Amino acid sequence: MRVSEAARWLLERDRFLILTHVRPDGDTLGCAAALCRALQKRGKTAWVLENAGVTATYRDYVAGCFAPADYRPEHIVAVDIASEGLLPPEAEAYRGKTELCIDHHPSNEGYAAHLCLDAGAAACGEIVYELCREGLGVMDGEIARALYVAVSTDCGCFAYSNTTPRTHRIAADLMEYGDFAAAVNKRCFQTRSRKRLELEGRLLAGARFTEGGQLALGAVSRRDLAEVGADEGDAEELSSFLRQIEGVRASATLRELPDGTWKLSLRADPDYLNCTAACARLGGGGHAAAAGASVPGVDRAEMERRVYAAIHAQLAAQHGT
Amino acid sequence: MRVSEAARWLLERDRFLILTHVRPDGDTLGCAAALCRALQKRGKTAWVLENAGVTATYRDYVAGCFAPADYRPEHIVAVDIASEGLLPPEAEAYRGKTELCIDHHPSNEGYAAHLCLDAGAAACGEIVYELCREGLGVMDGEIARALYVAVSTDCGCFAYSNTTPRTHRIAADLMEYGDFAAAVNKRCFQTRSRKRLELEGRLLAGARFTEGGQLALGAVSRRDLAEVGADEGDAEELSSFLRQIEGVRASATLRELPDGTWKLSLRADPDYLNCTAACARLGGGGHAAAAGASVPGVDRAEMERRVYAAIHAQLAAQHGT
Repeated sequence: MRVSEAARWLLERDRFLILTHVRPDGDTLGCAAALCRALQKRGKTAWVLENAGVTATYRDYVAGCFAPADYRPEHIVAVDIASEGLLPPEAEAYRGKTELCIDHHPSNEGYAAHLCLDAGAAACGEIVYELCREGLGVMDGEIARALYVAVSTDCGCFAYSNTTPRTHRIAADLMEYGDFAAAVNKRCFQTRSRKRLELEGRLLAGARFTEGGQLALGAVSRRDLAEVGADEGDAEELSSFLRQIEGVRASATLRELPDGTWKLSLRADPDYLNCTAACARLGGGGHAAAAGASVPGVDRAEMERRVYAAIHAQLAAQHGT
Repeated sequence: MRVSEAARWLLERDRFLILTHVRPDGDTLGCAAALCRALQKRGKTAWVLENAGVTATYRDYVAGCFAPADYRPEHIVAVDIASEGLLPPEAEAYRGKTELCIDHHPSNEGYAAHLCLDAGAAACGEIVYELCREGLGVMDGEIARALYVAVSTDCGCFAYSNTTPRTHRIAADLMEYGDFAAAVNKRCFQTRSRKRLELEGRLLAGARFTEGGQLALGAVSRRDLAEVGADEGDAEELSSFLRQIEGVRASATLRELPDGTWKLSLRADPDYLNCTAACARLGGGGHAAAAGASVPGVDRAEMERRVYAAIHAQLAAQHGT
């Protein structure tokens, strides 16, 4: 379904419920808030289904959009959801009932009756921008801010390789509707907690660089978390920290979980080290560029030994000994 | 002088030497490389004056642009240089001889015979883009890449508050000329040296947080650089590090320069603290959200005292005492 057809489909109906995906990011939430407000502006009844996973970063951008508990929708719309397996627990009752899905993932499983897919869009927000602006003919400062959140977060503030001229032009158009970009950028891209930075400092200070600087291995213990006063949120995505260092092609980040188990997060350039294959040697799994494994009942020294053994075996398999 | 007038001025002359500022950033270097190549494409003889401060991050983008040692220019052009005090040592012989200055700093001191200033531009690169595209009528992949470096670095990859719709539209236009943005972004925004991260760790460890956590002040000395083994490139843009901490609305980063002078880089939400005004109290200048000042002949403790005094005076001026 094209954007113009999706718009017509929406304009011919009423009483919508918009679904977002589990562990919601800026794209799914920004799209849902923007579409909800645009439909409301066109006189429709539309709400976003509650999603308990919304983090503090995004809460303001979806404020006032969530459906009242007694809402009885007639049409279910999903935004940025590639598969029904990604529906949050709140959406359990709506499995098999999505009528329209708007998405940019080439892997979309086609679970909805109608699919409006544009795999060339850096963010689902680019599609919803066109849907609101041209299809529904509505745009205002609040819709623009929600769409700016969607677009900018999915392209890493215009730094990721999915960013296109279209992405920049849409950002420019959205910014004409209000003075929100600096505040969104500050919150989504330029704010880190002091505790988070202190954890990064500890991770770096204790890291070992081997293989001529191409392999970095570091660990964060419960004691590190306690001494810094950090919580799980501060430690989120810590696995990408060592990977950004100049010359590092693979990073192994060990974290001690509350039960004392050590969890490995491996990040690498797959041409150098296939993370799935390396983690499989420890009973874990994931993607070629990002995978993980846990080994219960071993201490830190033993975990490090096993991680090095798995990585070295995999490096040998990929590059010869 | 308007952009069209600057273009006419350039087209009526020949044998140009283009100056960049001391501690050259992506904006001054990208502008110089782009203007140099655009003038060459228009059949002119044009070179960029050697600048020993060029770091590894930017070297590729200015490759082949530096003037041969025996070059005898007839006309001197400065890009992104607000004051003659910012000329690098190599430009000593050209003091008082700049005929055309292209700049976006509102604090430009008007030292050139002709000034083409647009204080609304996020980067000097926006002005040089218009000069090349419309004024000189030339653009290609290499010029576009140099201008993309100029524009993207000065707006922090489109995250800083100086970013406007125009900034995004120019980025979009530039990206149509070649597939360079992802590589530039990876190098300029997503790769950090281990030494850089160690410097950040030291800056954080020594930082003082006052005004209820809204003001952060930290310093990096020559000794810090030496102990980490870091060079000027590792310390580039260190001024934005403290500013990103949750709750911080203004950050003052002091750096000891090779001559022992302390240089302040101030970054702030202008509603909280106007950086231009605060730095003016120390004889410096810049933009409302980012400004700087150097005070020769004072030690670190005295510099910190003066910086706090300037900031507190400016906070009082903006918010009452």
